[in-house]
Amino acid sequence: MTQNVAVMGAGSWGTALAILLSKNGHNVTLWCYQEEERIMLEKSRENLSYLPGVLIPNNIHLTSDYEEALLDKKIIVITIPSKFIRSNMEKFSPYLKEDQIIVNASKGLENDTLLTMSQVISEVVPQCAVAVLSGPSHAEEVARDIPTACVISSKSKKVAELVQDVFMTPKFRVYTNPDLIGVELGGALKNVIALAAGIVDGLGFGDNTKAALMTRGMVEITRLGVAMGGDIQTFNGLSGIGDLIVTCTSMHSRNRRAGILIGQGKSLEEALKEVQMVVEGVHSAKAAYALSKKYNVEMPIIRQIIEVLFEGKSPKEAVVDLMLRDKRSEHQKEDIHWTHSVSWKDE
Amino acid sequence: MTQNVAVMGAGSWGTALAILLSKNGHNVTLWCYQEEERIMLEKSRENLSYLPGVLIPNNIHLTSDYEEALLDKKIIVITIPSKFIRSNMEKFSPYLKEDQIIVNASKGLENDTLLTMSQVISEVVPQCAVAVLSGPSHAEEVARDIPTACVISSKSKKVAELVQDVFMTPKFRVYTNPDLIGVELGGALKNVIALAAGIVDGLGFGDNTKAALMTRGMVEITRLGVAMGGDIQTFNGLSGIGDLIVTCTSMHSRNRRAGILIGQGKSLEEALKEVQMVVEGVHSAKAAYALSKKYNVEMPIIRQIIEVLFEGKSPKEAVVDLMLRDKRSEHQKEDIHWTHSVSWKDE
Repeated sequence: MTQNVAVMGAGSWGTALAILLSKNGHNVTLWCYQEEERIMLEKSRENLSYLPGVLIPNNIHLTSDYEEALLDKKIIVITIPSKFIRSNMEKFSPYLKEDQIIVNASKGLENDTLLTMSQVISEVVPQCAVAVLSGPSHAEEVARDIPTACVISSKSKKVAELVQDVFMTPKFRVYTNPDLIGVELGGALKNVIALAAGIVDGLGFGDNTKAALMTRGMVEITRLGVAMGGDIQTFNGLSGIGDLIVTCTSMHSRNRRAGILIGQGKSLEEALKEVQMVVEGVHSAKAAYALSKKYNVEMPIIRQIIEVLFEGKSPKEAVVDLMLRDKRSEHQKEDIHWTHSVSWKDE
Repeated sequence: MTQNVAVMGAGSWGTALAILLSKNGHNVTLWCYQEEERIMLEKSRENLSYLPGVLIPNNIHLTSDYEEALLDKKIIVITIPSKFIRSNMEKFSPYLKEDQIIVNASKGLENDTLLTMSQVISEVVPQCAVAVLSGPSHAEEVARDIPTACVISSKSKKVAELVQDVFMTPKFRVYTNPDLIGVELGGALKNVIALAAGIVDGLGFGDNTKAALMTRGMVEITRLGVAMGGDIQTFNGLSGIGDLIVTCTSMHSRNRRAGILIGQGKSLEEALKEVQMVVEGVHSAKAAYALSKKYNVEMPIIRQIIEVLFEGKSPKEAVVDLMLRDKRSEHQKEDIHWTHSVSWKDE
């Protein structure tokens, strides 16, 4: 069924999703934060800054007027950077009605409150149902029709299935999942592990080290996520390990690039200066550490990343400390996220 | 505690583990299948065929006499290719006593019986306790002291912890896990997914496609593994997703290389001829498909791989068929491996 859709934010992800939705037969409005941005896009019909080489079809309506963008749209897709979501939702809220569905496609946690983006949105726009889109999805590939699989989560099955219908195409497969907090935490925290994976690469370690880091890093995120009410298997799905794999193996990840510089001996300040862009993993490291304290969850990798980033510890020493920890079972009795369907026969 | 250890098989993995164990202070005997092999290793103190550039310390005793190799060894590490394990264990069995522990480090399933390697070993050598070593561990990196994390599994905690002690070093971290079948299945079936990952690369698809394939591939293996008695979280640990990550991202994987050729349009026969080596994923595809029938488990990716490898289906069409399947939840009610701790509020 054709829907009226607004995509709020014309970065690479917003532009890619607007193109996807338009090709899928919907009436799409793409909202640009600035009028100059809209004029540029209107003229070139190409997002030269964020998604060069991809045509923006003429049937995508461009506007910098959010009131106009939001009017009579069934689906509102949010691709605004996470730190600007609260302030923008406050502006949008008076124009949003009960029957509209907000689909958040931005990953992150709010700095001070540690809320997920859907929690922020629900707080500011309580009148609307909220869904979240997450999973391994480089915008560049989605815009070029490369086969991609994602997850839509919402507390309501009806909402999730409606949004699934809106997004699903032969090249963009969408699974639903009721576990909103689990889906959001995977996307919000993966960048810490990507940063750490970069550090391991910068130290000159191998594929073994990186695979172990990614696996045990995901175990820590799962442990935290389950303590926060998520479902184990969500973390082992597309929005969890799937997104982590794409982030840790991509050459394009800023988090990984900053990590490589730190692994090679640069300080956090030097690395951030050289990468010259926001490195989300630095914020999410702080958030993950704060959450591990709040929920009393053991996260040794996160602890070491904090020491390396903010306490001057050498990355090499951090790896040694992780390797030399007490002997463990993968299957700790105290780990509430283990199903423990199998146990030792002599215990 | 210093132990007497025999490593049976002097390929790359056997040689790397013999070096690791010797550096860890054990008395190590490395058994070579052929006397010529032993003479070569003795002369050069380097495994030129399988692990060039790594010195074999002089305190590793080399022999081609298995009776001598097995005598008075507490730990017997098996690194023989999986298809030769039964016949070799039949030869070894008369010389093995109750207090000896067999540690299998070879991955695979027996062709006709579909037994795991530890099941084969327990059948042939019922007098000994069996443990399994698995996880993301390229031999080349272990031999070069690159930080690596692995899993030791055994049905007995006592045995698992003893073997953990024998292998653990500051560069080789060992976790224990009671879930023997889960640990073995991950290692045995990952190569099917690595083959499929290669096909996706060969088709020219992107990081999104490959991450989705790895994630959903692991979901299928988990579904099968839980039906066979394994624990969900084992598949999300080092011997599951960890080993899959290392295999699918490595440039060295033969399975991936064969897959790339098939993705580029070659037939299975042409690809195997060009790779000129055993491609384990072809066998494990058959095994996984047979097991999915036996345990009545839905494995759509495995089904498509079978059609591509043996029924002449084009890889492109297989991807289309996977993308166009019925709309799904990641969280299928009928999936026994889901914990279902979170559910829709309107269902």
